[in-house]
Amino acid sequence: MPVVDVHTHVYPPAYHSLLTSRSQVPYIFTDPSTSQSRLVILPAEDTASTSRGRPIGPEYYDIARKIAFMDAHDIDISVISLANPWLDWLPPSEAAATARTINDDVDSTCALYPGRLFAFGTLPLSAPVQEIVAEIERLKGMKYMRGVIIGTSGLGVGLDDPALDPVWEALQRTEQVVFLHPHYGLPTSLYGPRASEYGHVLPLALGFPLETTIAVTRMLLSGVWDRWTGLKVLIAHSGGTLPFLAGRIESCIEHDGHLKEEGKVEGRRKVWDVLKKNIYLDAVIYADVGLKAAIEASGSDRLLFGTDHPFFPPLDEKDNGEWLSVKLNSEAVKSALGDDEAQQKAIMGGNAVDILRLTV
Amino acid sequence: MPVVDVHTHVYPPAYHSLLTSRSQVPYIFTDPSTSQSRLVILPAEDTASTSRGRPIGPEYYDIARKIAFMDAHDIDISVISLANPWLDWLPPSEAAATARTINDDVDSTCALYPGRLFAFGTLPLSAPVQEIVAEIERLKGMKYMRGVIIGTSGLGVGLDDPALDPVWEALQRTEQVVFLHPHYGLPTSLYGPRASEYGHVLPLALGFPLETTIAVTRMLLSGVWDRWTGLKVLIAHSGGTLPFLAGRIESCIEHDGHLKEEGKVEGRRKVWDVLKKNIYLDAVIYADVGLKAAIEASGSDRLLFGTDHPFFPPLDEKDNGEWLSVKLNSEAVKSALGDDEAQQKAIMGGNAVDILRLTV
Repeated sequence: MPVVDVHTHVYPPAYHSLLTSRSQVPYIFTDPSTSQSRLVILPAEDTASTSRGRPIGPEYYDIARKIAFMDAHDIDISVISLANPWLDWLPPSEAAATARTINDDVDSTCALYPGRLFAFGTLPLSAPVQEIVAEIERLKGMKYMRGVIIGTSGLGVGLDDPALDPVWEALQRTEQVVFLHPHYGLPTSLYGPRASEYGHVLPLALGFPLETTIAVTRMLLSGVWDRWTGLKVLIAHSGGTLPFLAGRIESCIEHDGHLKEEGKVEGRRKVWDVLKKNIYLDAVIYADVGLKAAIEASGSDRLLFGTDHPFFPPLDEKDNGEWLSVKLNSEAVKSALGDDEAQQKAIMGGNAVDILRLTV
Repeated sequence: MPVVDVHTHVYPPAYHSLLTSRSQVPYIFTDPSTSQSRLVILPAEDTASTSRGRPIGPEYYDIARKIAFMDAHDIDISVISLANPWLDWLPPSEAAATARTINDDVDSTCALYPGRLFAFGTLPLSAPVQEIVAEIERLKGMKYMRGVIIGTSGLGVGLDDPALDPVWEALQRTEQVVFLHPHYGLPTSLYGPRASEYGHVLPLALGFPLETTIAVTRMLLSGVWDRWTGLKVLIAHSGGTLPFLAGRIESCIEHDGHLKEEGKVEGRRKVWDVLKKNIYLDAVIYADVGLKAAIEASGSDRLLFGTDHPFFPPLDEKDNGEWLSVKLNSEAVKSALGDDEAQQKAIMGGNAVDILRLTV
């Protein structure tokens, strides 16, 4: 049974060039004092502190480095996806062509290592909706594409936007998996005046998972899964916090006077049903406590191992040593499933092979 | 073994009068069209929609109604606490006297039903810090007080504020439990343009738990538990999302270049250690999936049943029927612990009796 990494990002050369050409978030800049290139994705990272952005080197854009990382960690297959900020900030008239160029690049990259690389494509979300749908249909015909990665902002106002219906329809019809990933984080004001003393911990550890959970809950409340019962969504970071908060979400809906008056409490699909039929969760959660909750919420046949490479590199060790971030996630799978080797292997790769049809 | 509710709120008459006298958040107003009084705690609730605030009736301030609720649900003991917004918005010069009046009221209320009611006191957080410490010491001597309830804003800038050190010191020294509860919620902008269509679901189901998680994580990152190793904190709503995200928080700390450079990664207490030695979690989570994660994170001897009464009343049934919100929480305890009746009873009340010394 192969080991498959479903959460692993790339900055293909065309995308790297695009970000380097810019001078505001999102962008790549070179620190004049160190000559080091740094990537700034989040507004919260674009400060004058020593931790401004993060270093960006070849591991971000040289696919040979990805393969070396995979070899060092016994990962057989990676389903690569563009890293955020993706493309939804592009001028509408340029978005579709840029998405096509980048998606072609990514598909060609996969072809360099047949059977070892598959990919989630990127949508031109700032383009007219028919161009988004056209790219979804084009991706369906590409050899190594298995779905699309999207952030939480949709066409600009979130994933509960009814204007996204043609997008959901096309994704369901073409049977492509949506990899839902946090995007811009939450406002830095949430973290208080001392946040910068804590490096990136608060926005990354808490902001990202909550951003994801809000996005999914808005999809639920707006009836996305009532309208598109076949839509498949893989949620990053084991669902953000969805498995843990699902009970509270359901209870808040059942106790909401406004929803009750509007007739929106009865007849809807519950979050538990969606978790077991439409949602997949990656296993990027770094501890067995959370992973067990994710498994309980969605089932061990819906959890998929991932690494979040090239983010969270070890601070001390060499690039090709074992990464702590990877070890924490693979050990969580072992620990959560005790002696059930079959379920461990399913989460480490078998589920991904089945769900994403990872054969060439 | 008694059943104990550690999460149950009151608006004692003096506090009710105070809120009624105001005309901006936090306040109680009477809707002229229905003559119904409504309580507005969160800015997000203070809109022109039909769901502005929430109805407030005698169940909020008449202690006999609390006792009736307890009787209807076989709850032997309640540890009552002032409901938010608490007192941190008071002018500094009035805060200490108001807190004394309200804490005296609450203690006297407990005396009306000896052995059935205990309480968490309220601190005058806008007062000079020596007045806060004086109230902590005074509460220690009150017959039914067992700790204090606090929100997430501390003295105004959060619970990672070093100016809170005398408060933590006094709470540790007097061995009082801090009941940490979300307060103002998160900014409504987080929930997108359609949030009001979803009633209060997003701020209550997601905003409150994340507010709590941010507050606890800021305490952790600022070293509160390294300095006050004996500080005991009961976290509302099973820790917000802390049990689920603990692994990610630890991993983000271990991978943070800024914290590493500052020497803040080594030598600190890890979140797992704090969860098992300093933190208690209520069992207000409405599903066994989350409850099991809470138990795994902190241990079944640190989980304490609660209801969140008088919030989340049933929308259809009579006041004295069985509340769905209570049933969801008590069933989660049964389901999470399978056949282990001793552990079920511990969570339903035994732990609270031990930890909060609930004897008269």
